[in-house]
Amino acid sequence: MEKVQTDYSLYLCTDQGCIGERNFYQVVEHAIQGGCSVVQLREKKCSTREFLQTAKRIKAITKKYNIPLIINDRIDICLAADAEGVHLGLQDMPVAEARRLLGDKKIIGCSAHSLTEACQAKKEGADYLGVGAVFATDTKKDAVTTSLDTLKEICQKINLPVVAIGGVKEDNADLLRDTGIAGIAVISAIMADSEPRKAAERLKRILNSMDL
Amino acid sequence: MEKVQTDYSLYLCTDQGCIGERNFYQVVEHAIQGGCSVVQLREKKCSTREFLQTAKRIKAITKKYNIPLIINDRIDICLAADAEGVHLGLQDMPVAEARRLLGDKKIIGCSAHSLTEACQAKKEGADYLGVGAVFATDTKKDAVTTSLDTLKEICQKINLPVVAIGGVKEDNADLLRDTGIAGIAVISAIMADSEPRKAAERLKRILNSMDL
Repeated sequence: MEKVQTDYSLYLCTDQGCIGERNFYQVVEHAIQGGCSVVQLREKKCSTREFLQTAKRIKAITKKYNIPLIINDRIDICLAADAEGVHLGLQDMPVAEARRLLGDKKIIGCSAHSLTEACQAKKEGADYLGVGAVFATDTKKDAVTTSLDTLKEICQKINLPVVAIGGVKEDNADLLRDTGIAGIAVISAIMADSEPRKAAERLKRILNSMDL
Repeated sequence: MEKVQTDYSLYLCTDQGCIGERNFYQVVEHAIQGGCSVVQLREKKCSTREFLQTAKRIKAITKKYNIPLIINDRIDICLAADAEGVHLGLQDMPVAEARRLLGDKKIIGCSAHSLTEACQAKKEGADYLGVGAVFATDTKKDAVTTSLDTLKEICQKINLPVVAIGGVKEDNADLLRDTGIAGIAVISAIMADSEPRKAAERLKRILNSMDL
């Protein structure tokens, strides 16, 4: 899987906290069957050993569907699980150091809330940007928000794929039309839906109508 | 610094929780001046970015005194801070995977509570063992204990340096005489002492009397 070909259109961020009693791996697999094109695994509370075990199981699924697995924050887990890349926020390792450790073959994504942060991420070697929160979100209540004007400006001025994140759902995804994004990142819009495959399919149709 | 020459005699495990208002870096530096021969940095609560910043500052100190810095759990931090190695517990990455990621030049230490765990760690490629808790300890109240007989057996049967850990202090260190250990690991016996340099010096004298 070459990282230059990455399809960021429907980017799933996992959250084990919003699936209730359902099987996490099944929810993720159904989301992929519905059209998710990237999976980001985010585990902030478990041990390194558990994180690695989860990452390996998710990797077996993403490999089956030939889509990239991105690990939130942890370069050690990315390397050990042979994931395709990492996603880094402002509290994680700086992009430049991550690039030094991961080399050029791994995808490095970076969160950006402003044009300045986006520039910096590009300069340090990020492959894509996660920009937001574009809408209010329950999943991350302390999230810094980013206006749609800033989102557009980043898409225009920074030559990197931009994924809009934060509160994106079926009923607001269309507001992102013509912003220049490469895709949308969703958590609860898919993970919390009792039918994640159908939820992904509906989002995919909206994205198709936006030429994504 | 060749890992084969590592002096494990007085192994300091850091704990920012037991230094009160004092400067963490100064406490560590004084401990080294008092004779600590290895520093293990353990940070379970902070972000990756903070952990890395702390690791780099500690590395600058350990480098000045030419002693190895070992990072608890996190291989990503070890690589990014160019520490000499990692220490892995049962909730961390398995030793064999860590070895694959770190290569042969980094030190990998592993916690062991029994001969079986010690054998396994050796088989997977550990460079040294942390065995304990040999005494009751307040720093880690849920610690599994290891008897001095088991400690001795591990030292006899496993051809690796063994560091005894868990509640080791001035008034009980002598009980470890003739067990075959390569050193003692201490946290509060040095970190919580208002004069960490002197605390380290006193422990060093006890170790010297034990031919360590």
